[in-house]
This record gives sequence, C-alpha cells and structure tokens, in this order.
Amino acid sequence: MVEIRKPIQVAEAVERVLAHAVPAGTETVPLEESAGRILASPVTASHPVPPFDRSPYDGFAIRSEDTAGASGSSRIPFTVIDEIPAGSVSNKILGEKQAVRIMTGAPLPEGADAVVMFEQTVEDGDTFSIRKPFKPLENVSLKGEDLAEGEEVVPAGSFIHAGTVAVLATFGYTQVKVARRPVVGILATGTELVGVGDPLVPGKIRNSNGPMIAAQLRRMGIDCRTYGAQADDPDAVVATVERALSETDALITTGGVSVGDFDYLPAVYGRIGAEVLFNKVAMRPGSVTTVAAGGGKLLFGLSGNPSSCFTGFELFVRPALLKMMGANKLFLPHTKAVLGEDFTKANPFTRFVRAVYDGKTASPAGFNKSNAVSSIARGNAMIVLPGGTRGFRKGDEVDVLLLGVEEGSPEWTL
Amino acid sequence: MVEIRKPIQVAEAVERVLAHAVPAGTETVPLEESAGRILASPVTASHPVPPFDRSPYDGFAIRSEDTAGASGSSRIPFTVIDEIPAGSVSNKILGEKQAVRIMTGAPLPEGADAVVMFEQTVEDGDTFSIRKPFKPLENVSLKGEDLAEGEEVVPAGSFIHAGTVAVLATFGYTQVKVARRPVVGILATGTELVGVGDPLVPGKIRNSNGPMIAAQLRRMGIDCRTYGAQADDPDAVVATVERALSETDALITTGGVSVGDFDYLPAVYGRIGAEVLFNKVAMRPGSVTTVAAGGGKLLFGLSGNPSSCFTGFELFVRPALLKMMGANKLFLPHTKAVLGEDFTKANPFTRFVRAVYDGKTASPAGFNKSNAVSSIARGNAMIVLPGGTRGFRKGDEVDVLLLGVEEGSPEWTL
Repeated sequence: MVEIRKPIQVAEAVERVLAHAVPAGTETVPLEESAGRILASPVTASHPVPPFDRSPYDGFAIRSEDTAGASGSSRIPFTVIDEIPAGSVSNKILGEKQAVRIMTGAPLPEGADAVVMFEQTVEDGDTFSIRKPFKPLENVSLKGEDLAEGEEVVPAGSFIHAGTVAVLATFGYTQVKVARRPVVGILATGTELVGVGDPLVPGKIRNSNGPMIAAQLRRMGIDCRTYGAQADDPDAVVATVERALSETDALITTGGVSVGDFDYLPAVYGRIGAEVLFNKVAMRPGSVTTVAAGGGKLLFGLSGNPSSCFTGFELFVRPALLKMMGANKLFLPHTKAVLGEDFTKANPFTRFVRAVYDGKTASPAGFNKSNAVSSIARGNAMIVLPGGTRGFRKGDEVDVLLLGVEEGSPEWTL
Repeated sequence: MVEIRKPIQVAEAVERVLAHAVPAGTETVPLEESAGRILASPVTASHPVPPFDRSPYDGFAIRSEDTAGASGSSRIPFTVIDEIPAGSVSNKILGEKQAVRIMTGAPLPEGADAVVMFEQTVEDGDTFSIRKPFKPLENVSLKGEDLAEGEEVVPAGSFIHAGTVAVLATFGYTQVKVARRPVVGILATGTELVGVGDPLVPGKIRNSNGPMIAAQLRRMGIDCRTYGAQADDPDAVVATVERALSETDALITTGGVSVGDFDYLPAVYGRIGAEVLFNKVAMRPGSVTTVAAGGGKLLFGLSGNPSSCFTGFELFVRPALLKMMGANKLFLPHTKAVLGEDFTKANPFTRFVRAVYDGKTASPAGFNKSNAVSSIARGNAMIVLPGGTRGFRKGDEVDVLLLGVEEGSPEWTL
C-alpha cells in the first residue's frame, strides 16, 4: 500500500523549518570582504555626519547678516580674506562684509553662517558682489544633519550591501563583525543520475540539481561541500548522510523523498534518529519536500525534479540559512504583478510558477511541470497562485516572489 | 569666472557611455565557477528534455486501450510483469492487461502509453486493479516536451544564475564560455580624504567611496584594482591615471569633477588626450558626473559626494561594464510604486531618491542630500522623479529602479 501523507500549508512548513534553525555563530572579517555578509553587530555613528558644518558647494562663506537688502540694483560687495580647500581649515574669523573662498566639503570658517555659490556672484579680483539676501544657514550642511553621533545607522542582521560598506568605511570600521556562513552539504541521490561530464545512456539523466543548488547557495555567499551523486542504496545513503552531518551545519539531499520503492530518505531519517518536520506540503511543484532535524542540524530532503528542487530551496532552505546567519530579512521579496497568462484550472495546492517578471507583468517562463528545466533557466520570479477552487485569468493581480535579489523581505507575506 | 556647463538628459548620457563600451573578450571557466558570469555563447539543448518518454509518478505503466470501461463497479485488473527503477530500462513488451511497476523518472517500457499512479490502484500481490479509464499519454512526460534537441535554451549575453547552471549541467557543459570580466581601477581624489583606518582630524573625512565602489563592482562579480586616495595635485593625478589606464579596462575616479579651484579631473582628461563625453547631467544627485573616453577605455569621473557617487555608478558605470561583458540586460530593473512621501517642490533636474521599496510603496530611505551616507546604507531602490515644473505627492505612482538584483532589464525605460 502506498503511504498516505497529510499535506501542510507552505507558511506552516516555513515556520517549522525556521523553529529548528540554529545560529551559526559570528566572525570578524576585513571591510573589503564584508559585502554580501550579514552584519552581526549594529553599525553606530562614531561621529556626527557631517562631522563639522561644511559647504555643500564651491563658493564663498559669508555672514548672512551682511546680505540684508541686496538686490540687482543694489549689489553688496564682499572682500575675500582667505581660501579653504576641502580638507583644510581656516584660522580667520570673518568680519563685516568679509568672505572666505570655500570648496565643496570644506568646513565653514568662524563667523560664517551661509555660503554663496560661485554662480550667484560677480567676481572682480579679491572681491565679489551679490544680488540677493541670504538666510542664516543657507547653503550650509550642518554638523550631524545626516547622522548624529552614537545613532544606530544599520541594525544587526542586515545584509551588507555597497551602501552599508560606505557607512562602515565612513565610521572607520576596518574590521566588521559578521555572521559565520553555515557549511552546507549537498548529496544528490538517484540511480538514474550520471555526472555532468558523463555521456547519457538509456534511462539516465545528468545530475543538474547538485550544481544548481551550489549556485543557489553561492548567490547567498555560501560555499558548499559536495557529497556527489549516490545510487538508491539505503546503507550507502545512511553512511554518507552521517558523514556529511559530522562535517556540515546543514545537509541538502535531492531525490528519494517520494513514495517510490527506492525512495529511501524517509528510512534514512528513521535510522539516524532525525525528526521529520513534514513530508508533504500543499504546494506545486515540490509537494514531497521533506525536512528533518537531528543533532541540532537541518536535513533538507528536496525533490529530485529540477523545478521542485529549485522551489524547495528558495522557499525553505534559503530562509533557514539566513536565520542561521541572524539575518532580519529571511524571505524572498514579494510584489504584486499582472498575470500574463490564463491558469483557468483550479488546484487544491498553492502553485509556484516559474516566471519572467518585467516590473509589471509576470508570465510563465516556459514549460510548467515539476520536472521542467527550461523554465528555471528562463525565469527571474515565481508567480504564486493560492490553492483552492478557483482558476486565474490573464490580467488578474497576483503575488510574485522575486529571485536573485540580494536583500529579502522581513515577513512571510503569503 | 565659473565655468558654465550645459546639462544633458540622463538617457542621452547613458547612450553616450554605452557607445564607447568596448567588449572585454571571452574566456572559458568550469561549470562550478560560471554562476554570476555573462554567457558568451548560447546554451543549446544537446538532447531532448525529457530524453525519453518517462513516468512523472511512481506507479504502473500500462496500455491505455486496456482501461476502456473501467469504473468503480467494474474494476479492471492488471498483472505486473516487471519493475523499472529510475535509471533502468525494461526489456519487456507489454501485452494485454499487463503492467510494469515504474518509478518517477524511469523510461516507459515498450507498448505502454499511460501511467497509473499508486494512489489510483488497489494492489494485491503481483496484480492491481483500476476504477477509471486512462487516455493515451495520460501521466506521461513525453520525450522533448520541455526542450527539443538543438533548441536554443539560453541566449548569449544572459546572466548565469542558478537556473542557468541547471540547464548547463543537464546538457553536459563542464566548461562554459563566458565574458571576461573587465579589470576596473578605482582612484579616489580629494585632499580631505583619510583612510578608513585613520583617525579623523578637523576638515577631513574618511574615504568611503572607494570601498563602496569596490562593493558595487563586487556585486557584479567584478574585482577591482585600487589606486588609493590621492590629494588634489594635478601632476600626481595625471601620473596615477596614466598608470591605471595601462593596467585596467576602465577607470573610476571619485571627486575632482566639479567647478572648484581644486577639481583637476577636467584638466587631467585634457592632458591625457581623453574625449569628455559629458560633464553635466540633468540629474540630482550627481549632476557633475563626468565621463571621458581615451585609448578605447572609459574614464568615469564620479562625484565625491557619496550619494552622487553611488548613483553615478549605478546609472552609468554598471550598464557600461555589463555592455563590455556582452550582457543583454544592461539596466537596473524598473517597476512602478506608490510614492511614500511628498516631494512638493519641483526640480528642473530628474531626481534619483534613495529609497526603501517594499514591493508596493517606495519611501525615501533617509536624509536626502547628495552628501548623505545614511540613505545609501538604508535603501534598496531609487525613486525616479522626472525633472520639470511639478512636484509629487504621497500616493502618486512613480518609477522605481531596484538595486541589488542580479539580472537587469533589457531596456532603459526612463
């Protein structure tokens, strides 16, 4: 008799996985290697930004009080008494109708409270004149207006992108405390698999899931250990899984989780004493996705079908690994889009359709079956069609999850 | 007298830069290192997918003609004559009411044209019965239904993501022809700059642009050569620029492009004989962004203001480097969003406001001045507010460019 499994909803499955994701620890890396990592401590402003009152333009620093009454018919002249390039300070103090030539980014000299841009003056040797009054602090970047000293600028758990690096550099972080990356193992199972470099023989296919998952990990900045492809032999699989678990923080297997005669992963979980968190999810593709936990580690049993495998990784493995790294945005970014094709047939399970999203419309990326590979190659998003009794029409507004975006969403919104 | 520059529109500036982007050549890398690169030759299907008619389920392969008339009250029995695990082939030929036990992914045996799932049967030893008729090809994955042999699956110029890797593996590409990555130099200029590890002294700021650009390059998979930070000394800058150009495919400088007394980049371009493509763009921040071309190489003169520098990179440097790599999607992905705050003051220049986009609303990421760093750290998008005579209100639909997305858009849509 075939085993009957009870499906759980995707949100419930995600929650169960996350409940078993254990922090992977922290480490310190040089600033130049911090991009793409998850910040383990908040970045705080070690000084105000700007660090001093400064000029945002090339021009002249003046006292605004000296500009009262200036107009086109009554220009007010100033005498230039010093010049401040960026990076320098002036030791002059402005007196009445005196000015200091000042460059973008240079600190205002004492006494000055406004900046006249070159374009607003008529110059004549060491003097210039203006034709309009200036308000106090006009054209001045005030100390601390961007960030106050001690302010938390970026919270722990943030993805470190190029902008984060700019802030780290600004505040002198030559070393950055980041999450350690979990070590992830990949084991492909299936007697039908041959290596990428092997010729095809009847009944066989090449192991595409292993390299695909390695690339999915790599776009998270995570390297993997590969345990090769293994025939459907329960003793051999148990031995490899035990070895892999001793060498990694999490293990991803592909294949062997369905109800076929040679799907040995359920037996393997039993033999190594791992707790199965779920073995059926109300989703297509990937309904047989199985996740187990043992020895404080997660074992992801992804389907051997390429599209199912891909989807299982993005929905379950990715947020779990991000949680292990202490990230505060675990989930694929989500948006709404216009559905580009009819899906008139209802499905009781939630469908994740590999799609091309162009910023407005999301259209299926190609052949839509769990064993398809073309649509994985062509897609940049997944259309989410909730399970139920209704179909969907071209033009309907639908949920879309975006793939290949460096920073995720803080909430599971589906 | 201050130099008056004539601004050009952003789209025109992008076009001028792209016209000078020279292909960087190609190289061959192992499959495992291909993710994140740009494909230099199309991927074609070296065999059909599936490579043979196969079962998408665990069940029994049958002849559909034998199922005519089956019903709950008139079940039709079958005799199982063989079993085919995935990876194997059967040499049996099905006769009347004969079946072969078949696992997901295994090739259909001769004579069979349909698959009964385990769940659709009642088993009894070597026999089982069914209660419904099956159509020819029901539950069969047909040879070539996903991809035909010889079909172009992924065009040259595509970004290689995890799904692309799956296809490359499927078709046995152990080596992949990809675009060579351009070697990019970074030179920060400005007497006000100190190193990230240096203490701040009055009038100085740390060089945050250099590390930021290195991270912007790194998220494109491009490493850089750093030429440090240099004081505003024209002879020294000329020497460094000439050396950098001899060692790189493109050079990014920060600072020195405005109209200040120590902005020497315009003079440097003149001395090395580079043609200035533009030196004023109708955009904020980054209006002083200057791009020159000399000796077949691009010189990007980005502003020293962090936000301007960041924006100049994303709008001009990124597409140019992608074009050098032969990419077919050069531009930041674009979508529409609801504006999260008022921008009631009109601006003649197009504004690129660093923003947080949550899949629906785009709100300014913080302090909005060209010298701000906080908003770069907090943003994941840029709101685009076209230049003109009108302001924008919270709730307006606006254009948004997304940052940190691995694959771009094929068109400049703004």
